[in-house]
Parts: sequence; C-alpha cells; structure tokens
Amino acid sequence: MGFSMAAAYDRAITIFSPDGRIYQVEYAFEAVRRGWTTIGIRTKSASIVAAEKRKITQLIDEKAIQKIFKIDDHIGASYAGMAGDGRILISYAINQALLHRFYYDEPAPVEYITKLVCDVKQAYTQHAGVRPFGVAMIFAGVDEKGTQLFMTEPSGRYLSYYATAIGEKSNNVIEFLEKNYKYDLDTSESLKLAIQALAGIVEGKPFEDYMEIGYVDVESRRFRILMPNEIRKYVEELDKEGKLKM
Amino acid sequence: MGFSMAAAYDRAITIFSPDGRIYQVEYAFEAVRRGWTTIGIRTKSASIVAAEKRKITQLIDEKAIQKIFKIDDHIGASYAGMAGDGRILISYAINQALLHRFYYDEPAPVEYITKLVCDVKQAYTQHAGVRPFGVAMIFAGVDEKGTQLFMTEPSGRYLSYYATAIGEKSNNVIEFLEKNYKYDLDTSESLKLAIQALAGIVEGKPFEDYMEIGYVDVESRRFRILMPNEIRKYVEELDKEGKLKM
Amino acid sequence: MGFSMAAAYDRAITIFSPDGRIYQVEYAFEAVRRGWTTIGIRTKSASIVAAEKRKITQLIDEKAIQKIFKIDDHIGASYAGMAGDGRILISYAINQALLHRFYYDEPAPVEYITKLVCDVKQAYTQHAGVRPFGVAMIFAGVDEKGTQLFMTEPSGRYLSYYATAIGEKSNNVIEFLEKNYKYDLDTSESLKLAIQALAGIVEGKPFEDYMEIGYVDVESRRFRILMPNEIRKYVEELDKEGKLKM
Amino acid sequence: MGFSMAAAYDRAITIFSPDGRIYQVEYAFEAVRRGWTTIGIRTKSASIVAAEKRKITQLIDEKAIQKIFKIDDHIGASYAGMAGDGRILISYAINQALLHRFYYDEPAPVEYITKLVCDVKQAYTQHAGVRPFGVAMIFAGVDEKGTQLFMTEPSGRYLSYYATAIGEKSNNVIEFLEKNYKYDLDTSESLKLAIQALAGIVEGKPFEDYMEIGYVDVESRRFRILMPNEIRKYVEELDKEGKLKM
Amino acid sequence: MGFSMAAAYDRAITIFSPDGRIYQVEYAFEAVRRGWTTIGIRTKSASIVAAEKRKITQLIDEKAIQKIFKIDDHIGASYAGMAGDGRILISYAINQALLHRFYYDEPAPVEYITKLVCDVKQAYTQHAGVRPFGVAMIFAGVDEKGTQLFMTEPSGRYLSYYATAIGEKSNNVIEFLEKNYKYDLDTSESLKLAIQALAGIVEGKPFEDYMEIGYVDVESRRFRILMPNEIRKYVEELDKEGKLKM
Amino acid sequence: MGFSMAAAYDRAITIFSPDGRIYQVEYAFEAVRRGWTTIGIRTKSASIVAAEKRKITQLIDEKAIQKIFKIDDHIGASYAGMAGDGRILISYAINQALLHRFYYDEPAPVEYITKLVCDVKQAYTQHAGVRPFGVAMIFAGVDEKGTQLFMTEPSGRYLSYYATAIGEKSNNVIEFLEKNYKYDLDTSESLKLAIQALAGIVEGKPFEDYMEIGYVDVESRRFRILMPNEIRKYVEELDKEGKLKM
Amino acid sequence: MGFSMAAAYDRAITIFSPDGRIYQVEYAFEAVRRGWTTIGIRTKSASIVAAEKRKITQLIDEKAIQKIFKIDDHIGASYAGMAGDGRILISYAINQALLHRFYYDEPAPVEYITKLVCDVKQAYTQHAGVRPFGVAMIFAGVDEKGTQLFMTEPSGRYLSYYATAIGEKSNNVIEFLEKNYKYDLDTSESLKLAIQALAGIVEGKPFEDYMEIGYVDVESRRFRILMPNEIRKYVEELDKEGKLKM
Repeated sequence: MGFSMAAAYDRAITIFSPDGRIYQVEYAFEAVRRGWTTIGIRTKSASIVAAEKRKITQLIDEKAIQKIFKIDDHIGASYAGMAGDGRILISYAINQALLHRFYYDEPAPVEYITKLVCDVKQAYTQHAGVRPFGVAMIFAGVDEKGTQLFMTEPSGRYLSYYATAIGEKSNNVIEFLEKNYKYDLDTSESLKLAIQALAGIVEGKPFEDYMEIGYVDVESRRFRILMPNEIRKYVEELDKEGKLKM
Repeated sequence: MGFSMAAAYDRAITIFSPDGRIYQVEYAFEAVRRGWTTIGIRTKSASIVAAEKRKITQLIDEKAIQKIFKIDDHIGASYAGMAGDGRILISYAINQALLHRFYYDEPAPVEYITKLVCDVKQAYTQHAGVRPFGVAMIFAGVDEKGTQLFMTEPSGRYLSYYATAIGEKSNNVIEFLEKNYKYDLDTSESLKLAIQALAGIVEGKPFEDYMEIGYVDVESRRFRILMPNEIRKYVEELDKEGKLKM
Repeated sequence: MGFSMAAAYDRAITIFSPDGRIYQVEYAFEAVRRGWTTIGIRTKSASIVAAEKRKITQLIDEKAIQKIFKIDDHIGASYAGMAGDGRILISYAINQALLHRFYYDEPAPVEYITKLVCDVKQAYTQHAGVRPFGVAMIFAGVDEKGTQLFMTEPSGRYLSYYATAIGEKSNNVIEFLEKNYKYDLDTSESLKLAIQALAGIVEGKPFEDYMEIGYVDVESRRFRILMPNEIRKYVEELDKEGKLKM
Repeated sequence: MGFSMAAAYDRAITIFSPDGRIYQVEYAFEAVRRGWTTIGIRTKSASIVAAEKRKITQLIDEKAIQKIFKIDDHIGASYAGMAGDGRILISYAINQALLHRFYYDEPAPVEYITKLVCDVKQAYTQHAGVRPFGVAMIFAGVDEKGTQLFMTEPSGRYLSYYATAIGEKSNNVIEFLEKNYKYDLDTSESLKLAIQALAGIVEGKPFEDYMEIGYVDVESRRFRILMPNEIRKYVEELDKEGKLKM
Repeated sequence: MGFSMAAAYDRAITIFSPDGRIYQVEYAFEAVRRGWTTIGIRTKSASIVAAEKRKITQLIDEKAIQKIFKIDDHIGASYAGMAGDGRILISYAINQALLHRFYYDEPAPVEYITKLVCDVKQAYTQHAGVRPFGVAMIFAGVDEKGTQLFMTEPSGRYLSYYATAIGEKSNNVIEFLEKNYKYDLDTSESLKLAIQALAGIVEGKPFEDYMEIGYVDVESRRFRILMPNEIRKYVEELDKEGKLKM
Repeated sequence: MGFSMAAAYDRAITIFSPDGRIYQVEYAFEAVRRGWTTIGIRTKSASIVAAEKRKITQLIDEKAIQKIFKIDDHIGASYAGMAGDGRILISYAINQALLHRFYYDEPAPVEYITKLVCDVKQAYTQHAGVRPFGVAMIFAGVDEKGTQLFMTEPSGRYLSYYATAIGEKSNNVIEFLEKNYKYDLDTSESLKLAIQALAGIVEGKPFEDYMEIGYVDVESRRFRILMPNEIRKYVEELDKEGKLKM
Repeated sequence: MGFSMAAAYDRAITIFSPDGRIYQVEYAFEAVRRGWTTIGIRTKSASIVAAEKRKITQLIDEKAIQKIFKIDDHIGASYAGMAGDGRILISYAINQALLHRFYYDEPAPVEYITKLVCDVKQAYTQHAGVRPFGVAMIFAGVDEKGTQLFMTEPSGRYLSYYATAIGEKSNNVIEFLEKNYKYDLDTSESLKLAIQALAGIVEGKPFEDYMEIGYVDVESRRFRILMPNEIRKYVEELDKEGKLKM
C-alpha cells in the first residue's frame, strides 16, 4: 500500500483502515524504532535486560541516565521509544508489583505485571482522546516458572522470547542473537552474550559508559544492575576471547 | 462498490453508509482475517477450540504463547485478530463466569457468557470515542444443553456452529471441515479431526509446537488443554491412518 | 436528489439535510433491508411473529439461531437488521416487561413496551456520539385491547399493522399478504398464512429448518414458539391444499 | 442566497450563518413540512386540534394510529413532522401538566405547558451534540383566559393563533381558513369548520377513517376526541349544506 | 475584508479570526438585525421599552404575542432577535431579580440584572458546544440612581443609553431619536416620543394593535404596560399635534 | 510568514504552529488592539490607570460607561479588548482580592492578584473547548513593595512596567510616554502626565467626558477615581502650561 | 521530510506521524527556541541556573521580571519558552516540594521534583483537548547525591547535564560551554563561568541588569539569587581577567 492511502487514515485516532490495521499503533511502533537499542535475553540461568546509552553532547551526564529499572526484587525492565511515555509505564509497573506484594504477600508473576502494563497500552489504542504509548518494553525476571522474558508492543500485545531487541539498531542485534544465542548458558556466559550483542552497536568507549545491564538469576531471584567495573571485567574477558572488535 | 465511496465513510466512527453498512465494523473483521487461524468443532461428544501458533523468529518462545484460554471449568475460548483486544475480552469472560458462579452457585450457560461478551462488542460499534474490537472469538463448552460452540463477530453478532474457523487461513480449514465434519464422533475422533484440520495449515513441525488445543467432553464437563505429547500421539495415529501429508 | 448531495450530509451524525431528512436514520433502515425477512400478522384470533432462517454454511447450526423472542408471557418479538443491535433491544424490552409486572402486578400493554423501545431508538437519532439502531422490530401480543401488532422503525416511529414484513424479501411477502390477508382467521389459519408467506421466500427445505414462528392467541394469551413438527404438520396441510410450490 | 452558501453552514450543529440564521433549525422545519397535515382552530366556543391520517398500505391499521393526544383534562395537542420526536415532546407535556396539578392543585395554563415544551426545543437549538426537534406542535385548550391555541416551531418560538395548520398540505388549509374562519362560531360550527378544512386535503374515504379530531369547549373545559360516528354525522351535515366536494 | 476570508472562520465556534473578531458573535448580531424593532428611551421622568408587533397572517392573534416583559416591579425588558433565545434570557432575568429580593429584601439595581444576563451571554461566546444567544435586549427601569436604560449585545457587552433601538428598522428609529430626543420630558411626553418613534415604522393600523409599550416612572417606580386605549389616546394627541403621518 | 500558512493553523483551538506560536492567542491580541486605549503609569508617588471613553452615538450615556474598576482598596484596573471578557476577569480579580483579605486579614499584593488572573488566562490558552480571553489588563496599585504596575496579555504572561498602553492608539501613547515619562513625579504631576497622554488621542471634548482616570498614591494606599471636575482642573493647568493642543 | 507532509499531521493534537513523531511536541519545542536564553551549570561545588533578561521597551521594569525561581531551599529553576506556561509549572514544582517536606519531613531529591513536573508534561502530550506545555525547564539543586542539574523537554523527557542551555541563543552558549566547562571549579569559578556564558549573548549593559543568576552550593545546600552588586563584582573580575569582550 502506498503512502496516499495511509494518509487518509492516520489522522483519526485509533480507527481501522480498510485492511484492518490501526495506523496510529503502527506509527507508535516507529517511535520505538527511533529509540535507543534495548535487548532482552533469558537462558536457563538468568534473565537479562540491557540497553545502549548515548552521549548526545559532551555536557550530558550519561551516567545519570537510567535505562534499566528494577520493577520488583525479581523483575527488571527497560523500554525503547519515547522517554516520557516509558517512564509513566515503568512507574505503573512498579506500583502494580508493590500492590501485588501488599495484597498477596508474594512476588507477582512476571507475566502478570506484563499483562497489566499491556492492558493499559491496549486501552490507549481503542479510545479516542488519547494516543497510543510510543514505547515497547522488555520485562525480564525469574518466578515460579523459571526465567521469563516478555516484550510488549504499543498495541498491547506481548510475546515470550528467548532473546529479542527493540529500538534503532535492533535488527543488527537480533541477527547477532539468532546466530549466537544458546539456552544452556550460565549467568556469566549470559551476561557476556548480552555485552557482546550491545558492543556491536554502541557508539563510544569505554563500553561500560555506553551500556546499562540488569539481570536476575534463578538462584538469587534478585534483580541487580551491573556496576561499571563488572561490565569492564566481562569486556576484558570477551576481548581476550577475541569476541570483540575493539 | 468501489474504493472511493468507502473512503468517504470509513473515517467517522461507527456511522452507517448509504447502503446500511458500518465500515469500521467491517474493517475490524479484516483485522480478524489477518490473525492466526483458530478453529472450533463440536460433536456429540465434545467441544473443541484449537489454534495455530507461529514461530515469528527462532528466538520466540512459541510454547509460552497462549492462544487457548479456560474461561470456566466447562468453557474454553480462543480468538483471532488483535492480540491486545482479544486478551481484554478473554479476561472479561473469565470474570463474568466467576461472577455467575458467585451469584447463582452454578456454572454459567455457554451462550450466556457469549452473549455478555457480545454486548460489550456491540456497544463498541454504536458509541463514538471508541473503535470496535478487532477480534472474533470462539467459545466452546458443555452445559445443560450439551456441547456448545459459538463464534462472535466484531459487530456483536454470534452464531451457533458445528464447526468453524477464523483467521488468515480459515477458508482452507472451513473447506476441509465441510468435507470431513461428522456429528457422531467420539472425543478422540473429534480431537483428531481438529488436529488434522490444523495440520493442513500450520507452518512448522513438530506439529505439537505449532498448535494449541483445548476441549471439554460431555462426560467430564471439564475444559483442558492437550499436552504436547498428547497431540504427538494423535498426530502419529493420524499419520498411520494416512490422514496427514507429512 | 442525486448522490452527491447526500454525501454532504451523511457523515455528521443525526443532523438534518436541507430537505428535512436525517440520512443516518435512513441509512440505518438500509441495514434493516439487508436483514433476514421477518413478518408479523394479527388476526381476530392471534398475533404472530415469524422469521426466515438461513443456512450460511452447512456447518452452522441454524436450529440454535434464535430469531423469535418471548418478551413476556403475552408478547413475542423479532427484528430484522443488525443482529448485535437487535439483541440489545430485545433484552431491553424483556427487562421493561418484567419491571412493569413488578411495579403494577399485571402484564404490560403491548403498545407500552413498543413505545419504551422506540423512546430509546429516538434518543439514538437525536444525540451525537451514537448511531441509530440498525434494526426494525415487530412486537406481537394480546392484551386488553385484543390482538396487537406493532412495527418499530430505526427513527423511533412505530405503527400498528394487520400484517407487515421487514428485511430483505419483505416486498415479496407484503405483496403476498396484501392479496391473502383476512382478519377473520382462526389461530390455525393464521399460522398457516404466516407459514405460506415465509415458504415463498425461504431458501431451503425442510421448511421447519428454515423458519421460526411464535404466536399468542386470544384464549391463552400465552406466547409460544412452534415446534418443528408443528410447522411440518401445517406445511403438510398447506401442501395438500395446493398452497405451496414444493 | 443560493445553495452553495447554505452548504457551508449546515453541517456544524446550531451555529449562525453570516446572515444570522441557524440552518439546522430551518431544515428541521422542512421535516415539519413533510409531515401529515395538522390543524388548530379556536373560536369563542372551543379550541380544536385535528389531523389527517393516511393509509400507507392496506395492511396498516390506521384506526390505531394516534395523532391527537390529551395532555390534560383541558388541553389537547398534535404535531406534524418526525413521529419519534413528536412522541417524546407529547410525553413531556403530559408529565409537566401532571406535575403542575400535583404541585399547585389546579390545571396548568395552556401557555405555561406550551412554554415548557418550547424551552426544551430552544435548548436543542443552542447546544452541540444534539439536533433540533423535527416537529411543530399545536396546543389547544381552554383555561382562565378562555380558548387558547398555540403553535410551536422547532426553534422554540411559539405564537398564538385563531387558526393555523402545519405539515405537508398546510398551505391549502391555511388558505381555506383565511377565507372561512369566523371567531363567533359555536362548538358544532367550529368542529364542522375543522372537518371541512381537513376534508379538502385527506386522501381517502370515508372521511372518519382519515381524520382525527379533538376539542375542548368553554363549558366543559374537557378535552375529548370525536368518535368516528360523530365525525360522520358532521360530514353528512356538511354534505347536505353543499360544503363538501364528495 | 471580503467574504471568502470570513468563510474560513465562521464554522468553528467562538474562535478568533486573525483580526481579533469572533464571527459567530457578529453573525448572532445579524439575527438581532432580522428581529422586530424594539426601542428604549429614558428621560428625566421615566424609562420606556417599546416594541413593534407584526401580523404575520390574519389568523394570528397579535394581541396575545408578548414582546414587553416585567422583570421586577421596577424593571421592564424586551428583546430583538430569536424569540426562543429571548424567552430564555427573560426568564433568567426574572428569576435573578426574584432571588435578589429574596436574599437582600430590596429591589435589584437595574445594572445588576443587566450584568447577570450579560455574564451568561459572554459565557456562550467563549465555550465550545454552544452558540451565542441571538438576541439583543433592552432593560429599562428606575432605581436608586434614577432612570436606567441598558442595551445588551450578543457578545455580553452592555452600554448605557438615553435612547436606542434594535431590530430590523432600528436605523430609522435611531435617526428619528437623534433628532427628537430630549432628556427633560415628563412621563407623558416620553411615552408620546416612543409612540411617535414606533409609528414611523409599524406596518398596520390601528397603531395600538401593532405596538406594545411598557414604562416605569420615577414617582411610582412600578413598571406597567400601556393598555390599547392608552396608546390610542396618545396617538390621537400626537395626531392633533400633527406629529403622525396618518 | 505569509497569510496562507497562518490560515492552516488558526482554526484548531490552542495548538502550536510549526514555528512554536499559538495563533489563537495572537489573534486574541488583535481584539486587544481593536479596543479603546487604556494606559498605566507608575511613579515614585502613585500608580495610575486611565482609559479613553468614546461617544458611539449622541444617544449613548458615556458617563455611565465604566472603564476603570476598583479591585480592592489599594488596587485599580482597566482592560482593553472585548468588553464582555474584561468584565468577567475584573469580577474574578475583585473576588480573589476579597478572599485574600478574608483568609489573611491583609491586602493582597498587587502581583498576587495579577498572577491569579493570568493563571485563568493561561488555562484558556491550553485547553480545548474554550477560546483565550480577548483582553489585556492593567493592574495599578500600591503595596509593601511600593507602587506597582502590571500589564497582562491574553497568553497569561504579565510584565512589570513604569508606563504602558494597550488598545487601538497605544502606539501613539507609548511614543509619548517614552519621551515624557519620569519616575520622580509627585501624584499631581503623575496624573497630569496621564491626562496629557490621553488628551492626545481622545476624540471629543470636554476632555473630562472622554476619559476616566483612577489612581492610588503611596500615602493613602487608597484607589480612587477622579471626578470630572478634578480632571477639568488638571486639564486647565496643562492648558496654561501649554501642554495641550486644544 | 518537507513541509507539506508535516502540514498533514500538525493539526490533530498529539497523534503520531508515520515516522513516529508527534509534531505538536516538536512545535512546542520551537516555542522554547523562541524564548529568552536560560542556562544551567553544575560543578563539583555548585548547581547554577541563570537567565538573560531583555528590555523590550525603556518603559519596562526589567528588574521586576523574575526568571529564576526558588523551588525549595535546595532547588532553583528557570524556564525558556511561553511565560504563562512556565509560571504554571514553577508553581506546581513549588507545591510538590512543599508537600514532600510535609509528608516526609525532609527535602525532596532534585530528580523527584523534576520527574513530577515531567509526568504532567507527558500527560499533556498524550491526551486530546490540551496542548503540550511550550516550555523547557532547568532544575538545579544539591541533594544527597551532590550537585544535580536536569533539563526537561516539552515531551516530558528529562536528562542529566553538566551544563546546558535552552532558548533563542542556546546554541552559542552551548558552544561556549563545551569549550570552557570544567567539573572541578569552586563556587565562585562556577558562577563566573555562568556569567561569562551569558555575557556573550545578553543585549545590554550593565550586565547585572540583563541577567538573573541563582545557585546552590554543596556546603550550604541553600538556593539563593545573586544581588546585582554580586554580579557586578564577578563581571569586574572577569573583565580584569580579560574574559569579557566589553
């Protein structure tokens, strides 16, 4: 379908085009494609969410930019797309996880939190007076079912992945992951896979300044964000293994 | 009617065209036609709902994708179309079935739940500020009236079927069912008919990874989802019977 | 008036055209004209509402499709047009009849129920943010005034009829009724007239599978739906009388 | 002003055109002009409201079609235009007259009821999200001030008349009334004037089947609707007097 | 500015044009200019509001048409423009005057009532979903400050006048008043000035049937409407004085 | 930027144009520029607000037209632009000043009142369904900080001035003030400067009929409006000083 | 992308363009670019926010124009863009900081306040009926984490900076800062850097009349605004050091 037909349907909020598509939702996905690259990986041992960080100007404090968020002890998340929108949904997820602990006195299943966020996203695609959220999100966690990894789309759809990427250079990362992903990695190997994937696309060095990585492993079930020196250590190992084009 | 006239009516939400059609509802049905194929079959012995599953990339965990949902002990359902929309209506059906048990202390008739979902769908076709739901749903169950199978359309209309299919390859499946459907099948034969129907259109193997099947039989009146090895067993039987093009 | 002028007025909901018409209401009537044919007949002895049923595919269970509804002990109804819309108004009529019995401890006059439904229909033609209901309805009953038959239009107007038809083949049926209707029929003769009228337009056999007929007579004042074998008996009588083209 | 300029102003609800007109209100009056003819006459002795009735098909029960409504013991009313709209305002008038009796324990002045109905009509011409009512109404009654006759327009304006007509053939009737109206008629003469006026425009015979006439005289102050045989008697008298073209 | 530019701004309700005008308000003033002529005069001795009355057809009862309204004992008012709109604002003014007496136990200042009406008018020019009121009003009264005369515009602006006129022939009347107005007239002279002004523009005779005149003088501070014979008396005096073209 | 681009942005209420402007706000300023000229001056000794008054016709009572308003004992204000809008904001300011005294038992700072009015103005530029206020206002007062003078724009912005003017001839007045303004004037000199400024642009004589002047000095902190004879006295002094072109 | 495509998307509030952008948000940033230049700097020792002030006419009191606001004891802020919008968000930030002290009895983290303001900004980009805020804001403070500096965009995004500038001449200032910024400055050096940055772009002298500077240092954690003579002293030092082009 050419552009002119799309033009006829994109102005009215959240209505169907004759071929059953909702352009506003698809355009929201374009906002995701313009975002910084974010990746998720889950293996037998751990669920990881990692994101590139860019230095827009030398006066920006990229260390203070948070891209990886702890949703609950056992869940982390990130997003690609419009920062303002993403922050709203991250806050919503944190609140819902807290409420779940409050009401049931146990950690929320990762899919439960993912679903609640997607219910909000869906509502913003069906009602007038609002626009869809311009973000895709990755939720990584460990719960009763083991490691979990979900990617949510602006439409409110989510799918379970072994590994995935969203944002501007996600195609490069996915290509890399399709070649290199293995399920049976231990936590360190999993983290090194994530770092290797990001290292191929970040725009500066040292790598630890240009990526943020969080993970939760099946033993601890505690989400934590890697310290810069931890990233550096893995980078050095990868370098020794000849896995980085430095 | 050509395209240009349709263009004049598709932008305003839920109004009639001069020939008495509501284009937004028809376009919503296009979203259904773009969905993964879902089928329903009811025989003397059982009501079945089954759906194809696709592997979008090798990194997706198609086993974690849920297409068949238990609405209540005696009812299952699936949908074709927009995943975000479908999930909302599945949740609504589950809640209404629960409320029925709470208020009346007995399982809800299958048509009652179907009707409640369709009332919501209808409202979203008549009021401004919303768009119709972009999903068709199949409800399969057993109640006082025996096996039941309803398919709901985006307009809020539902009809009773012996067998039907919705989604991208529904025409192929319906053609198959029109030739092979029989009412007097027992539960195993019914399930094998469903598997055979899906096997003709799924895009990968082993079949148990690419289809999800739920059923409720008249004896147990309990909806359950087939385990992969159960599907595999039926596939092997069908293969021996020469009913699968492997 | 040609099409182009209509085009200028049909998009805005429920406003007048320069010649004092409301196009959305007229287009809603087109939805009625696309519906399955439904007829109403009242004679000295009984009020009847009857509808054709179609077999869209051989997999549909046309016996489970309900076209004739009991509104109260003494009133039945049917509709032609959009099924989702019709179901909403049928439910509304049933509830209002129940409330009337609850408040006044006596059956509601047929016109009273008709009027309440039409008040809802009218409101949906005068306020923005909604579209008119795309159904015409026939209410048939017996009350203090004797046999009653009303047909309601999407505009909220209703009229009293001796006999009428709505839906796709209503013109053929009305032509037949204008030639054959008599007021002084007994209940059996009235039912046979309805069957004969429908037999001329239904699309399959045996007739009892393709029509649904409800009636209320002045003696019992109780609305009931004919069993298939009852229809078959009348069909056989009509056949013997040479009144059916078999 | 030609058509093209009107076209620019008729779509937005209830806004002024550059020459200070509100087209939606004027178009609503067109709906009145398409309605069945309704007349009002008041003389020294009585206030009369009368309406033509048409037989759309031979299957319609024109006797059951009500065009003249009792608003209160001392007030009758009719309308021309959209039947659904008219019914709503008739119900409103009846309720307000009842409330007036309830609160003040005396019959409401005819102008008071007329004014309340016109307040509703005016509001529907000034606020967005609604369309004007497509009816003109005639209120005829007797109160402390003697015989009363008001005609209300879709704009919410009303005027006091000695005699007037609305609807499709109102011009013919008004022409007749301008020639034949006299204030000093007694009740019988007044009724015969109304019948003579209608007889010139109704489309069938016997006349009593094609007209409905209500009146209230200054002695009884009670509104009543003529029985068919009463109309017939007046028709016969008029015929003898050579005043009807039979 | 030509017409085409105005066309671009008149459809959206109550927004500014590039030259800072609100066309809807100006168009509402056109509705005033189409109204029957209404005049206001205040002198040392009295405040007068007077209006022409027209006989649209010979069947109309122009004596029953009220154009001059008592707002409170000491205030009268009239309007030119849309009758339905005017009636609403007259009722509002009467209610507010009543409330003022109720709360403060003294008559409301004339400007206070004028201001309240203008607050409503202003609100209808600034908010979407409504149109401005299509009436200009004249309030005439006597209060602590002496004789008072205000004319309110559709914009919500009001000004104090010695004499003014609104409606179709207001220019003729204003021209007459600019030549003949004097402040130091007594009440009879003031009333004769008003009658003389109206006599120049009314369309029928006797004059008392075609004008309605109310006044309040500084002695009585009581608003009253002239009886037809009072008007006739003044007309005869004016005629003797050679001031009427009869 | 030419006109055609502006045309594309001026219809939708309160949205940004590509160059970051909000045309509706700028057009509202045009309404200010069409208003009667209003000036504000503050010196060491006093804050003054003054306005021209025009005689639209000889029948208008320009003495009764109020352009200068007391907001509180120590604050006066005026506006240029749409009279209906201005009156609403003047009332709002008076109410807020009263509330401040009620809650805090001390006079409100002049900037506090200015700010509250501007908060309302800002809200009317950011929300749909309303238009901006078509007035600029000048607040003049004396508070703890000394003499104060603020001018508020339709956007909700306000600035502190030594002297300023708004309305049709504001450019002439500002030019005059830029040449003649001095901070160290006493109250009489300040008032004479204001009169001299207005005298250059008013359209009739005697000057006291065509201007209204209010001031508050640092000694009394009480806002009062000059009597006509006070203005006349200053005019005579200015005339003697050769400062008026008579 | 050229202009014509943008034109198609800029009128509807807050919807996505096909490339995933929201034009209204980008146009709001143009309003920021039209604003007076505002800068933020944080070093080891202090967080500074500073803004240029312009003298629009000689009659304006630029000393009374406030550009730098104290949000709480330890936080200051400024904005560039639409003054009315900025004032609203400054008030909101002050209220939220106050509430934080009230609820938690401790100063709010700088990022917490920034985030709350951005949540409001984000909401105004996602809902219809409002426009985005046309301001960017700089929050400068010191909290448990040390010096803090955030810049918020109209989209609701915020980033942490070492130094940044917004408004009309921000590019010049950023260029200067990229060359001259050092983290290890003491408070005086930091303030002199800010003054030097502003001195390059302000439009008048003496500099202290054309800039406003606020800072909070790590020792006091108290935000204060420099007195004109303090600015003058730094200016003189900078001049002696040859760092100002005077």
